[in-house]
Amino acid sequence: MNDNDLFDHASIAPFFMAESLAVIGASSDPHKYGGRPARWARLGGFRGRVYPINPGAAQVQGMRAYPSLAAVEGTVDCAFIAVPAAAVEDAVRACAAKGVRAAIVITAGFGELGEEGRARQERIAAIARAAGMRMLGPNCMGVINFARRFYPTFLTLFRGDEDPAPASGSISLVSQSGAVGGHVYELGRARGVGFAKWITTGNQADVQVADCIAWFAQDPQTRAIMVYMEGSPDPGRLLRALRLARQAGKPVVLLKSGRSQIGGEAARSHTGALTGSDAAFDGLCAQTGVHRARTIDELVDVALATTHGRYPARAEVGMVTVSGGVGALMADYAEELGLAVPALPASAQRRLLEVFPHGSARNPVDPTALWAQDVSVFGHSLRALLDEGGHDAVVIFLSVAGTIPVLRDRILEQIVPVCEEFPGRLVVISMMGSAEVLAAWREKGFLMYEEPRRALEVVAALARFGARVVRAKALPPAPRVPGSLRVLPRGRLGEHEAMDLLERAGIPFAPRRLAVSRLAAERAAAGMGFPVVLKLASPDIAHKSDIGGVILGLTDRRAVGNAHDLVLRRARKAAPGAQLQGVLVAHQIQGGVETIIGASCDPALGPVVMFGIGGVFVEIYRDVAFRVAPISPREAREMIGDIRGYALLAGARGRAPADIQALARALSRLSVFAAANADTVRGIDINPFIVLERGRGACGVDALVEFVEK
Amino acid sequence: MNDNDLFDHASIAPFFMAESLAVIGASSDPHKYGGRPARWARLGGFRGRVYPINPGAAQVQGMRAYPSLAAVEGTVDCAFIAVPAAAVEDAVRACAAKGVRAAIVITAGFGELGEEGRARQERIAAIARAAGMRMLGPNCMGVINFARRFYPTFLTLFRGDEDPAPASGSISLVSQSGAVGGHVYELGRARGVGFAKWITTGNQADVQVADCIAWFAQDPQTRAIMVYMEGSPDPGRLLRALRLARQAGKPVVLLKSGRSQIGGEAARSHTGALTGSDAAFDGLCAQTGVHRARTIDELVDVALATTHGRYPARAEVGMVTVSGGVGALMADYAEELGLAVPALPASAQRRLLEVFPHGSARNPVDPTALWAQDVSVFGHSLRALLDEGGHDAVVIFLSVAGTIPVLRDRILEQIVPVCEEFPGRLVVISMMGSAEVLAAWREKGFLMYEEPRRALEVVAALARFGARVVRAKALPPAPRVPGSLRVLPRGRLGEHEAMDLLERAGIPFAPRRLAVSRLAAERAAAGMGFPVVLKLASPDIAHKSDIGGVILGLTDRRAVGNAHDLVLRRARKAAPGAQLQGVLVAHQIQGGVETIIGASCDPALGPVVMFGIGGVFVEIYRDVAFRVAPISPREAREMIGDIRGYALLAGARGRAPADIQALARALSRLSVFAAANADTVRGIDINPFIVLERGRGACGVDALVEFVEK
Repeated sequence: MNDNDLFDHASIAPFFMAESLAVIGASSDPHKYGGRPARWARLGGFRGRVYPINPGAAQVQGMRAYPSLAAVEGTVDCAFIAVPAAAVEDAVRACAAKGVRAAIVITAGFGELGEEGRARQERIAAIARAAGMRMLGPNCMGVINFARRFYPTFLTLFRGDEDPAPASGSISLVSQSGAVGGHVYELGRARGVGFAKWITTGNQADVQVADCIAWFAQDPQTRAIMVYMEGSPDPGRLLRALRLARQAGKPVVLLKSGRSQIGGEAARSHTGALTGSDAAFDGLCAQTGVHRARTIDELVDVALATTHGRYPARAEVGMVTVSGGVGALMADYAEELGLAVPALPASAQRRLLEVFPHGSARNPVDPTALWAQDVSVFGHSLRALLDEGGHDAVVIFLSVAGTIPVLRDRILEQIVPVCEEFPGRLVVISMMGSAEVLAAWREKGFLMYEEPRRALEVVAALARFGARVVRAKALPPAPRVPGSLRVLPRGRLGEHEAMDLLERAGIPFAPRRLAVSRLAAERAAAGMGFPVVLKLASPDIAHKSDIGGVILGLTDRRAVGNAHDLVLRRARKAAPGAQLQGVLVAHQIQGGVETIIGASCDPALGPVVMFGIGGVFVEIYRDVAFRVAPISPREAREMIGDIRGYALLAGARGRAPADIQALARALSRLSVFAAANADTVRGIDINPFIVLERGRGACGVDALVEFVEK
Repeated sequence: MNDNDLFDHASIAPFFMAESLAVIGASSDPHKYGGRPARWARLGGFRGRVYPINPGAAQVQGMRAYPSLAAVEGTVDCAFIAVPAAAVEDAVRACAAKGVRAAIVITAGFGELGEEGRARQERIAAIARAAGMRMLGPNCMGVINFARRFYPTFLTLFRGDEDPAPASGSISLVSQSGAVGGHVYELGRARGVGFAKWITTGNQADVQVADCIAWFAQDPQTRAIMVYMEGSPDPGRLLRALRLARQAGKPVVLLKSGRSQIGGEAARSHTGALTGSDAAFDGLCAQTGVHRARTIDELVDVALATTHGRYPARAEVGMVTVSGGVGALMADYAEELGLAVPALPASAQRRLLEVFPHGSARNPVDPTALWAQDVSVFGHSLRALLDEGGHDAVVIFLSVAGTIPVLRDRILEQIVPVCEEFPGRLVVISMMGSAEVLAAWREKGFLMYEEPRRALEVVAALARFGARVVRAKALPPAPRVPGSLRVLPRGRLGEHEAMDLLERAGIPFAPRRLAVSRLAAERAAAGMGFPVVLKLASPDIAHKSDIGGVILGLTDRRAVGNAHDLVLRRARKAAPGAQLQGVLVAHQIQGGVETIIGASCDPALGPVVMFGIGGVFVEIYRDVAFRVAPISPREAREMIGDIRGYALLAGARGRAPADIQALARALSRLSVFAAANADTVRGIDINPFIVLERGRGACGVDALVEFVEK
């Protein structure tokens, strides 16, 4: 199915585009939640119709009030419901009867309160569903469409009667939490972020964060998307919505809480225990080019950066600084953030050093204290970086210059004309200054951040957006999930059954054979070539090596025969009642890099694949990458590169590069298998999965497959 | 030697405490660098004497000017030298002749320009040294003592004639870079940081950052210390200065550039290659309780937090939030930062839920949207956390409340009386608001940070300062470094010589013997117990396993004898001319955790010890800890806990806990050996150093010792 087909954009539209708004529970007190939408409509100048519904008043804030929704003559596109929890159900019913297309329920006291509240919430959702009406909330803060001055929200948008209508911009925000939505709105406004749309989803009984992202993806006024979320009731939907945003070339900046509680679980190494983990969500973000912010600050600052629509073509940066010390810090940050700091061409350096002989002209360019006497150094430096340096992105650190009026104006006179010579380049300024000064410089076309590290973080984020979203080719279609891969759930499989099953799904394993006698074991070993490893085969004994049930490095037939007898003897002694199927004889793989690949059904994200470097790396360093299944080999390749241990595969310290192609193929196939059996697979671990030298392939050596019990 | 004895505090004092200041190169133009100190003295009201020196003017800015320093009648404690580079030497000479005690050279054009500049710099330093005069700079920005209104600096301290003198506070700053010093001063001022002293060291021809830290450690007005530095000309001095600050119970917040260039070198795993690394500097900070800031922002924010002098006794936090979403984020941050979030006692929770039945009273406390109608929820919540919760530190997130005058005043009325009931507790507020609003709240005794993550970072930093600095017992004296440990430098040692040498220094190694014949090898093996490992002994062959010179798991005499012959045969074939000393037979250690311990002489920090979990962990994850040698076993224990792989030693995933005592003892002894041979040791690697189960000890299995060549 096409991702777009999943979403009913037309049904979401009235939340933003309604021509008429009813306020159920409209209050004459403009400070009460129910009094605000009418007040905002009046102050902002909404051009549609507003119908206050209040059975006890003929007028509300100077507008004609209606005793009931039914009493309204015309059609009502959107209703804002601000009545006590006990009255919400009737209000929703009235909306359904009136043919309202979009109902906003701000009232709290539903699903967030537990079982009984959830039941009431499900009842109102069912009423809406039956009527073909979409519902936002309950327990949300409403919606804003800034361009249309449509404010069905109780967010404090106007403080006084004289406040102008909030400016309209290019970024849209969806926040599950109303309070976070309001906070981000205010922070953004203070930093000059112009919003296009703003929506809060609250308890998400119907409309989810994903629906809003998908709608923004097709909204022409929205050029970038901000998201705050806690969890997603339908993660497949979220994935598809983020894919739509990526396909539309719209950067998404996302903040999600719940990182650590679950992050703690990631300490346990099994794929199963890692499900629902924050690392899996990181995988989803990587997969869709989303910038996952760590703080509210970062969410706003990175979103602000998208407003210029300039995305550097390369992950590199030119820098000018009024402090050599800060220049050194900025070079540190650039390297940490993966931004190259190429030196200016020698000719350009020579020219600059004629202007400031005691400075540094390499990059970062440091004109030394001379700048305080001769601001022309800024024009020269910036031009050199944009022209000979060819930089798409330049960061200028001006320290306290913004606090000294005379100086800052003279610097502006230097750099603005240079920027005009090179339109489309990104110039980011890091300086101290009042909110007004920073706003004035933003007006001139600069991105402004006080902290130099943030300036560089933003350049790095924009370069990533450029490569992964804005200029990214359309995603390859997700791999086909053939029905033939579906298998019947059977609880936990024995090791050899697990390997056979996964081999049929296209994942390579080391040659091996189940042998039911000493002779069979010897013959199997001779047939596959020494050395071999011999393992007890028993569905009843989980930790075979603990009872001496695994013997490595057998190099001849006699050794194999003896090992066969020994292993069975040990098993009979250690677990007298256990079913013994014989021994598994397997060719022992020499060399290679031990990785772990796995799959599971994440309670939040559905089927996921996992990749890590083997053993304690996963356990201690949490160095794993996830993707929502299925993924193509190309996506798997990107995933492999996401972990720090990748260096081991790439050929660190004189090692030969590993067969990453073969690994990517196996990951993709495992993901397809997991997707085909999403409802029945509990967990798959192929550990170790050994990746040999490039061209020599990769193969699993052990496998664990567990299905849900019937 | 006592750390204090290293520093001549009395000689540094005149930079801050001078009664008289000469300005050499005093300018009538108050905007020029040479014109500023006189202007600042006048505007600020310095009560000492100021002597402008200018041969061409009878008056400077209304003050009597002197044609030369010699012409001044009285004594001159401190001189500010603002003449062109060519005239500096004469000026310094004049200072020496006049008996000036502290000379500040702001002029640039010395050591920073290369060889010739370094020579001129060394000349002026020598003049000062010979005269017993201390010199700051050259190429610095000068000094401020805020309480005494003493401003020998060209930092822009007054913008207009009516500006009040800058306030005086409790934090002192030393910055190697003048521009960073100025920037931090302005940032701090904007956030309400009051400075006690401010000094910039520039090229550090004489006075170093370390001297200033040590002086601040004994300065009664300084309660916390901020540092910006790039490198230290004498790292031993820096270590001792930081120890003095710790012993004085004064928190140090430090920002250092040069992190990444050198950090890149840390990718290589050998101790030697890691020297001079940023990881080693992190070790120095850990060792002295220093908070190493990553950004200028963090430097200022953490320093600001020390101004209350409140250091939570436990690493835990209570939280109140007006947004459940931000509450979830704050809980994430707390966990990441190592702050516990204990639940309120059940009785307190019940009481709070009577006030806000739909909220959460656990911790974070979330009164829900009710707060906007009933601000008493803040008083109740805060009291519960301080009283029944017993929290030393509480963070309150107020979102946009600070932008709404009526609301913020009512909230303040709620929380201020509660704070007064519990004096000495730390209450940190995270909210949006203008600089003026935040300043007003600071006045009320709150720490204010817009970003909630920063609020929690600050709580974590203060708790660490409390435990590691403010309430820390005096450091145990550094271990004695006996002269008997000094050995003669001999280039690179053979493996068995290396092990013997280190064993004599008290570091345990696996039983082993050098055998010069087949029979000797067999006997040695039988004597120490099987299994054994056999290794070629040759000073000429570095990578023995590459040529098959290492054979593991030998379980009887015959196997040992055969291995002896095989190894020598392989060596003769692979390296025909190599000197073969025989074979090293060693008992093969079973089990345990493989660690790597090492020592080297860091070009920046002197002798250091290193600890990491073996192999690729060091290489890929850079999971290593350093300390400047020598360290006590107690310090080694702390160092061991600093790496992430510590979990493996502590007994992760059902493993038995390892013998960390034995490891700490070995690390301490290695550090003493490294310190005893600091001038001759190039690098020591004990890899692997195997740590067995608790009570069973630890021992090295292989060692590499390299001395500098003579």
